[in-house]
Amino acid sequence: MSTPTRDDAAALDAADPLAAFRERFVIHDDPVAYLDGNSLGRPPRATVERIHHLLDVEWATQLIRSWEAGWMDLPEQVGDRLGAAVLGAAPGQTVIADSTTVNLFKVLHAAAGLSPGRRELVIDEANFPTDRYIVEAVASSLGLVVRWIPATETAEAGVTAEILAPRLGPGTAAVVLSQVDYRTGYLADLPGLTALIHAAGAVSVWDLCHSAGAVPIDLDRAGVDFAVGCSYKYLNAGPGAPAFIYVAERHLGALAQPIPGWCSAADIFAMAPVYERAAGIRAMLSGTPNVIGIVAVDEGVNLVAEAGIDAIRAKSVALTTMADRLARDVLGLSGWTVASPGEPTVRGGHVTVRGPGAASVTARLAERGVIVDFRHPDMIRLGLSPLTTTYGEVWTAVHALADVVVGP
Amino acid sequence: MSTPTRDDAAALDAADPLAAFRERFVIHDDPVAYLDGNSLGRPPRATVERIHHLLDVEWATQLIRSWEAGWMDLPEQVGDRLGAAVLGAAPGQTVIADSTTVNLFKVLHAAAGLSPGRRELVIDEANFPTDRYIVEAVASSLGLVVRWIPATETAEAGVTAEILAPRLGPGTAAVVLSQVDYRTGYLADLPGLTALIHAAGAVSVWDLCHSAGAVPIDLDRAGVDFAVGCSYKYLNAGPGAPAFIYVAERHLGALAQPIPGWCSAADIFAMAPVYERAAGIRAMLSGTPNVIGIVAVDEGVNLVAEAGIDAIRAKSVALTTMADRLARDVLGLSGWTVASPGEPTVRGGHVTVRGPGAASVTARLAERGVIVDFRHPDMIRLGLSPLTTTYGEVWTAVHALADVVVGP
Repeated sequence: MSTPTRDDAAALDAADPLAAFRERFVIHDDPVAYLDGNSLGRPPRATVERIHHLLDVEWATQLIRSWEAGWMDLPEQVGDRLGAAVLGAAPGQTVIADSTTVNLFKVLHAAAGLSPGRRELVIDEANFPTDRYIVEAVASSLGLVVRWIPATETAEAGVTAEILAPRLGPGTAAVVLSQVDYRTGYLADLPGLTALIHAAGAVSVWDLCHSAGAVPIDLDRAGVDFAVGCSYKYLNAGPGAPAFIYVAERHLGALAQPIPGWCSAADIFAMAPVYERAAGIRAMLSGTPNVIGIVAVDEGVNLVAEAGIDAIRAKSVALTTMADRLARDVLGLSGWTVASPGEPTVRGGHVTVRGPGAASVTARLAERGVIVDFRHPDMIRLGLSPLTTTYGEVWTAVHALADVVVGP
Repeated sequence: MSTPTRDDAAALDAADPLAAFRERFVIHDDPVAYLDGNSLGRPPRATVERIHHLLDVEWATQLIRSWEAGWMDLPEQVGDRLGAAVLGAAPGQTVIADSTTVNLFKVLHAAAGLSPGRRELVIDEANFPTDRYIVEAVASSLGLVVRWIPATETAEAGVTAEILAPRLGPGTAAVVLSQVDYRTGYLADLPGLTALIHAAGAVSVWDLCHSAGAVPIDLDRAGVDFAVGCSYKYLNAGPGAPAFIYVAERHLGALAQPIPGWCSAADIFAMAPVYERAAGIRAMLSGTPNVIGIVAVDEGVNLVAEAGIDAIRAKSVALTTMADRLARDVLGLSGWTVASPGEPTVRGGHVTVRGPGAASVTARLAERGVIVDFRHPDMIRLGLSPLTTTYGEVWTAVHALADVVVGP
């Protein structure tokens, strides 16, 4: 394959079966290239309309009546839709709630509660801060030990079976892994690692923040135990929109949920003197659902469902392949390298390059209307969001990057 | 004082110094009386415009750049505004985050962490479910004991010093109280009870859900240790909008926060290998802030600040006094009674009546366009929201109630 030209990019855009989806989002001419949909996706037009409707009709005219008329069911209802379209989860196992941080705290307590005799939590040092902080906090709270997978071991190819296996044993309670590494973009073998974790008698907790909506996920088939993730990246639900929780049906019967609130009680409006946990996934709720946020998740999920996750993944692979190829070719002698895997089967939805002065390079690109994502200390993530990112944007962004770091 | 007539109500509305604020909200002709602003306040026009701007400009055009341009500072910034206008809190002690449930979980851990030798948490049985459930959960998690104040003792006059004092001692770690009882509307003596709690060497945790925005609060002057509350009642921030946390400055130095996330780390974007807590109130954050929700809190707070909490309280007292008087007079022989205190100095922003068939009465009132709030098993709350509720609505609602339960 030769280095893609601007004409190649234009031809790919012209032939893109998902091209029409771009019209479903609010997109302006500036920035000229937005490669940060893996941090904050663009606003879907349907979301803007839905929120207007929520404000003008559901809130302003129906007022409190809207809770009974539908709002109260949204966490589970949209959870089921997300489960079907994005997670490979049958109904009754997914709920929209809180933030990824809070949700990870809840499911990790629930996970550790399943096997009180096992005293170890496993996580990789390269995992996202929230994941590491929560693992440490829960371990400290429950008197468990954290077994760290050193970052040096995962730098080459992420968390593999060979790396994980020696950390598992009869003392392992739970393993927390991200399906896609937030920095390098490594795509972990979710089914294979889950099977390995189960073989050790432990439970799996997957963070899907960087994979939900970009990569096909089949939690039920893989037998995943618990999962969490956010909605504002590839699901395009907006800044700080609520996150999701997946709990495999087999664990719903005996769930240790550390933050019981009025919305996780069996009969919400009984306001009973003694707490009785809701049956099913609603037990993972805590306080009052964030309605505006949940409807935004709903609209984001609808778009993924309509496009189909396989078509999204196909375009994602094409976009990342182009970004990877361009970066390797045009950044050649600049001191910049590609930190993401070259093989698309082990790569998620973004391509990360690293080099000197990455922070100031990011700022200089922004001045040209090219938005990329700096990660401390030397990385730039090129986030490629299949429903909105064009091949032309990839071409423009990587060439702008080359201009800045190599010179024209 | 004679029973207020419809003309009296009209005269009070005509002379209401806050009357103009009603124009600042989106209000339709149906329902004819909305007495449920203590469950869900009405939408301020400024909130609708602000959310449009957020969607159309900040999200759609600025995209990820908005985080640095201001979104990241919103939790503390709006927290400070809420502190100043509503809580009597100097800057740096209030943050907008999560739900009341999650926030209570956090502050109760922090509160218990201040005095590891003390093993008791005190709460009243009549407190809101979330408060009771969280107290039990935290006690169970930390190996503490819950000392319950029986509901029979607080039925007459809420939690008083006489009732609380015998529950306090050298073993008391923290006391969780609601400033306004969600069912009866009793307004607790926040400064007095806080002083009593301190005299026992314990820390105070106040739930302000039913008082914030309706009752003057002076947390700093009272020396309150921790407080939480929601924003969707008298602060009118919309369904499931985020809650707030107040931590007195003297406790910010050594804060045990059980749900540390990337947003409570000292340097958010360093994504450091070792968790270092943020200095100050930001340490109480966990995950990504809910931006749409926080700007809605901001606009709700702005309206309270503009009206002034003293003017709001004055109208609140006048509204509840009218509701109380009307209910006592026109429900006389119906078997219905007023459950709220008759004395306004110990009454919050709602008046609760109780009687047979309260659930079906609520439904029949709704058919007439009169929205009140049923509470299991036999209560109807008349929620009076000073920025939007008219005296005419109170007159209409209580007479409709009398029509339904007594007959015309």
